[in-house]
Amino acid sequence: MTAPLPSGIDVVEVGPRDGLQNESTLLPTATKVEFIERAIAAGARRIEAVSFVHPRLVPQMADAEDVMAAVPQRDDVSYSGLVLNRRGFDRAQATGLSEINVVVVATDEFSKRNQGVTTEEGLRAWEDIAARAHAAGIRPVATIAVAFGCPFEGPVSSDHVVELARRVADAGPYELALADTIGAGVPTQVGELVSRIREETGARMRCHFHNTRNTGYANAFAAATTGVSTLDASIGGIGGCPFAPNATGNIATEDLEHLLSGMGVRTGLDLEALSRTGTWIGEQLGEEAPALLGKAGPFPQR
Amino acid sequence: MTAPLPSGIDVVEVGPRDGLQNESTLLPTATKVEFIERAIAAGARRIEAVSFVHPRLVPQMADAEDVMAAVPQRDDVSYSGLVLNRRGFDRAQATGLSEINVVVVATDEFSKRNQGVTTEEGLRAWEDIAARAHAAGIRPVATIAVAFGCPFEGPVSSDHVVELARRVADAGPYELALADTIGAGVPTQVGELVSRIREETGARMRCHFHNTRNTGYANAFAAATTGVSTLDASIGGIGGCPFAPNATGNIATEDLEHLLSGMGVRTGLDLEALSRTGTWIGEQLGEEAPALLGKAGPFPQR
Repeated sequence: MTAPLPSGIDVVEVGPRDGLQNESTLLPTATKVEFIERAIAAGARRIEAVSFVHPRLVPQMADAEDVMAAVPQRDDVSYSGLVLNRRGFDRAQATGLSEINVVVVATDEFSKRNQGVTTEEGLRAWEDIAARAHAAGIRPVATIAVAFGCPFEGPVSSDHVVELARRVADAGPYELALADTIGAGVPTQVGELVSRIREETGARMRCHFHNTRNTGYANAFAAATTGVSTLDASIGGIGGCPFAPNATGNIATEDLEHLLSGMGVRTGLDLEALSRTGTWIGEQLGEEAPALLGKAGPFPQR
Repeated sequence: MTAPLPSGIDVVEVGPRDGLQNESTLLPTATKVEFIERAIAAGARRIEAVSFVHPRLVPQMADAEDVMAAVPQRDDVSYSGLVLNRRGFDRAQATGLSEINVVVVATDEFSKRNQGVTTEEGLRAWEDIAARAHAAGIRPVATIAVAFGCPFEGPVSSDHVVELARRVADAGPYELALADTIGAGVPTQVGELVSRIREETGARMRCHFHNTRNTGYANAFAAATTGVSTLDASIGGIGGCPFAPNATGNIATEDLEHLLSGMGVRTGLDLEALSRTGTWIGEQLGEEAPALLGKAGPFPQR
C-alpha cells in the first residue's frame, strides 16, 4: 500500500473557497482579495479562489466575478473555481479561469441535497463540462465528494467509489480528487482507495481532507505515502463542516506544511507567513482559527 | 518501516496524570476519582492516575496518596504513577501500585529544568528505581521524554535517542516509551525511532504523543504501523503543553479510538462514553476540551 514519500507535493490553497464558503461571517470582496494576496505571499501557487454556485445557496460566493477581476494576475499563480453545472462553467469561462473543479458526489442523498441531482446526473454533468473545458483549453479537475463517508447514507463502499472514479476518469480529468467532506475517513481507507483508483485509472491523484474528527493529518500522511501528488488545505484550517455545526474545517495549510516539511517533502510554502495569515483570517471572521501552528509556534528547523 | 496494523492496541489513559498536571485549575480529589471512575466505565483498563513529584512543583498532584486510596480496586484495572526519583518511588510503593512510569529526559537542558538532574543522572536514577521495582514486584515502565524535539536544545538526533534507549533497556523496562513532550515530531521520525529501538532492544514499545502542532494522530498512526503495542492518550485531549501556553495537550482518547476502531484495531474502549467524559472533564476545568469527537459526533459504524 505504501510508497516512499515524494520529494515534493502540490498544495492547493482552498481557504478562499471551501474555507470561507462554510463560514457564516460574510467578508467584503476586498478582504477576500487580501486573503488571496497573503496566500500568494506565503508561497501559494495554486488557489481555489471562488465558487460559481447560485448566490442564494452560497451567499459568501456571490461576488465570485468581482474577486476574480481583482486578484493578482501572475504567470506563476493559477486560480481555480468550483463548478457544479453548465451555468457555473459558463461563468467560470467568462472570468478567464484556466482551471475548474467539478464536484461529483458519491451518494445520491448528499448529491441531491448539495446540488439537486443524483450521482448519475452529476456524472453526466461532469462529462459535459469536462468536454467543454477541454475544448476551451481549461483544465478540468474532478472531485468525488463524500468518498469516505456520507452524513445521510453512512459508510460508502470502496468498490462504489472505485467504479465511480473509473467512470469519472474516462472524461479525462486533469486531476482526480477524493474528498472526505465530513471528516469521517481513516488512513487505511485513504491508502486503499487511492491505490486502487491509481491502478485502475492512472489518473493524477489529489485528496481533500477535513479535520472534523482529528484524522485529517493522518489521512494526509497516508495519502502522501500512497502516491497522491496534490493535497488541498485552507490557511487557518477555517471552514467548518456544514453537517457538524461545531466542527473544525479543512486541514490547515500551516499545520500541513509543518507535517510535510518535517518529513522533507517540499511544498514551496512559508510556515511563518502562513501562520500569520491564519491568525489574520481568524480575526477577519471574528473567531480563532482551528490551526495549531499559530498558537504553538513553529518547532526549530530540523 | 511499516508493518501491518495489529488487531489490538493497549491505550493507557493518562488524563488523570499528564492531562490534569498541565491544567491550571486545581480539581478536588473527589473529582479526580470520578474522572478515573468514568474512564473505567468507558473501558479504560490501564490508567496513569497520579504523579509522585514534589507538591510545590506540581500542586495538582499533591493529593496522589488520597486519589490512590479512593479509586476502585478491580482485578481488570491497573494503575500507574509517575516517578522521577527514589522519594517518589517510595511513595508509589507505599500506595501499593503495581506499575510505575519513570521519566528519563533525552536532553540535559530539559532534564535539569524538569527534574533537576542531567540526562546521565536521570538514567542512573532509572536504573536504581528499576532494580527496586523488580525486587518489589512492581512493573517499571521507562519513558524517554523530548525524544522527538526539545524546546531548549531544538532537534534531538535519532542516534542519541537510540543509544539512550539501549541503555534504558538494559535495566529491564516492562515497556519502553518514547514521548513527544512538546508535539514536535512527525510520522517518519516515529517510524525510524521505533523501528531502530525495537530492533536494538527487543523492548515492548509504547508512545506518548501531544497534538501541539496537529501531528499527534498521524504520529499515532505511524506508531501503530511500526509495531508499537501501547499508546498514551487523555480523555478530552486535556493537558496543554508547558512550553506553549495556548497549545493543545495529549492526543484525545476519544479521537484516537475513532482513528483506531475505524481501521479495525481493537482497544476495548467505548467511543460515546469517552466523548461524554471528555465534555464532562472540560466542564470541570472550565474550558472546552480540545477533543473533536465530542463536537463533531461519531461517524456511523463502518
